[in-house]
Order: sequence, then structure tokens, then C-alpha cells
Amino acid sequence: MADIPLVLEPIGWVESSLVDPDAAPLQGDEGAPDAWLVFDHGVSAGMRELRAGTDVLVFTWLDRARRDVLRVHPRGDVGRPETGVFSTRSPDRPNPIGLHRVEILAIDGVRVQVRNLEALDRTPVLDVKPVLGPTGER
Amino acid sequence: MADIPLVLEPIGWVESSLVDPDAAPLQGDEGAPDAWLVFDHGVSAGMRELRAGTDVLVFTWLDRARRDVLRVHPRGDVGRPETGVFSTRSPDRPNPIGLHRVEILAIDGVRVQVRNLEALDRTPVLDVKPVLGPTGER
Repeated sequence: MADIPLVLEPIGWVESSLVDPDAAPLQGDEGAPDAWLVFDHGVSAGMRELRAGTDVLVFTWLDRARRDVLRVHPRGDVGRPETGVFSTRSPDRPNPIGLHRVEILAIDGVRVQVRNLEALDRTPVLDVKPVLGPTGER
Repeated sequence: MADIPLVLEPIGWVESSLVDPDAAPLQGDEGAPDAWLVFDHGVSAGMRELRAGTDVLVFTWLDRARRDVLRVHPRGDVGRPETGVFSTRSPDRPNPIGLHRVEILAIDGVRVQVRNLEALDRTPVLDVKPVLGPTGER
């Protein structure tokens, strides 16, 4: 069935002060810095309704992760038993897609500043989606 | 920068009674059926701690979506103004990654039954992640 390769095209990149994987927080609400999403000009029509003050889901490609790992110690704590990656948020997993819920702080052309993003500098951005509200407001 | 192609490897497939895109609900909580995620045997070590009764995030590749679309009428309603895809949940977008929060109903070997999944039959599954609890419980 997987006869056609599923190839991702980054829509942009993370610009962040986080450059050292070992120093990065594990989740955005654990001390991650504000950062910028820099969109490719070719997709700018898709971002025109993004607004400061709203929360969005950002999807990234965790390009420094290992894809051959299926079991990990959660949060890198060897005191915790090895667990299947699909029950953890480990970046190491077959398809290292990062999911980040962040607040948009500012928008400047194709640059979008977001609060508390734990992704490293130069991480490819794959998608941005709105947070779903109640069914009546979609 | 995007010098290395970002290629996804499906970890499994959706098995669902939904085969017609035009008949599929737009979101899982809008009348989607229960469905099965059928994992590849090669990744079964990663799913060992999945448990019935818990909620998980399922990532899919919406392989019947259009990738050249940047603006859509939300929910296909031409009465609503065209909106950038990054402010909608449209499947049509540069990287058609589907995100579905579902409850696990049952597990049978490499098959995981989930409630209310709006993905079509044979949709590739990319990842499964736990829903994050409060910081103290991670």
C-alpha cells in the first residue's frame, strides 16, 4: 500500500534561541522560550487569518530525533520502566512529528512569534491548525 | 535547508466503514464511526502500553487531500469567506496531516479499536501520542 512515498514539504522554520538538544525543555510549558515561526513566502496566503492572542497547534519535524527507537525511558529517566514510544511524547519515534500548542504573540509579515516553544532552532515547520472549539463554533 | 527529503513511514493503517470522502463527517465528534488502527508488526514494541479506556492523539496522512490548496471556504460552506488553510481544519493543505483525539475501545494484538474516527478506510497512520496530563504526571 505504501507504494507512493509520503514526502513532507516544510512550510517554514523555527527561529529560536534553543540550539542545544540537551538544554531544551521537554515540553513548551516547562520553561521553553518564545520563538518565531518563519513561513515560506509560497504559503503566505494560507496564514493570512492567523491572529495574535489566539492559540494554535504547530506541527514540526523533529529532525534531530532517532527514528529507529520504539521503546524509551519516559522523559529520559532511567528510573522509569521502558515504555513504547506511542505511549510517550519522546521525540525519538518512527515519524518524529512534534505537536506544540502555543499562543501567537505577534505577526510580522511571514514571521509569527509564539510563546513557549520547545522546538530547536532551524526545526522544519509542517503545519499550523486552529484549536477546535465546541461543535457550534466551527 | 530542506536538502534531505522528509519521508514518512506509515506505522499502520485505518480500517473503517468510511470509504466515501463525501459521506465522511468533518470531525470525529460529528458522527464518525468506531474504527480500527492496524499497526505494522515491525512497530508493535512501541504500542505495548496502549490501554483501552484511555484517550490518545492519532496522526494520519490524509492521502486523498489536495496539497496545492492554501485558501478554502471553512467546512466547504461557500457562504463563509475564503480562509487560509492554517486557520482551518481542512484536509486540503500543504502537508495533509490529520490529528484525531480518540478513545481506545479495545486492543487485539496489533489492532486497536478507537471511537469516532473520521478518517477514511486505508488512511495511513503516522503516529500515536498520549494526551498530556498536568506537568506533575508526565
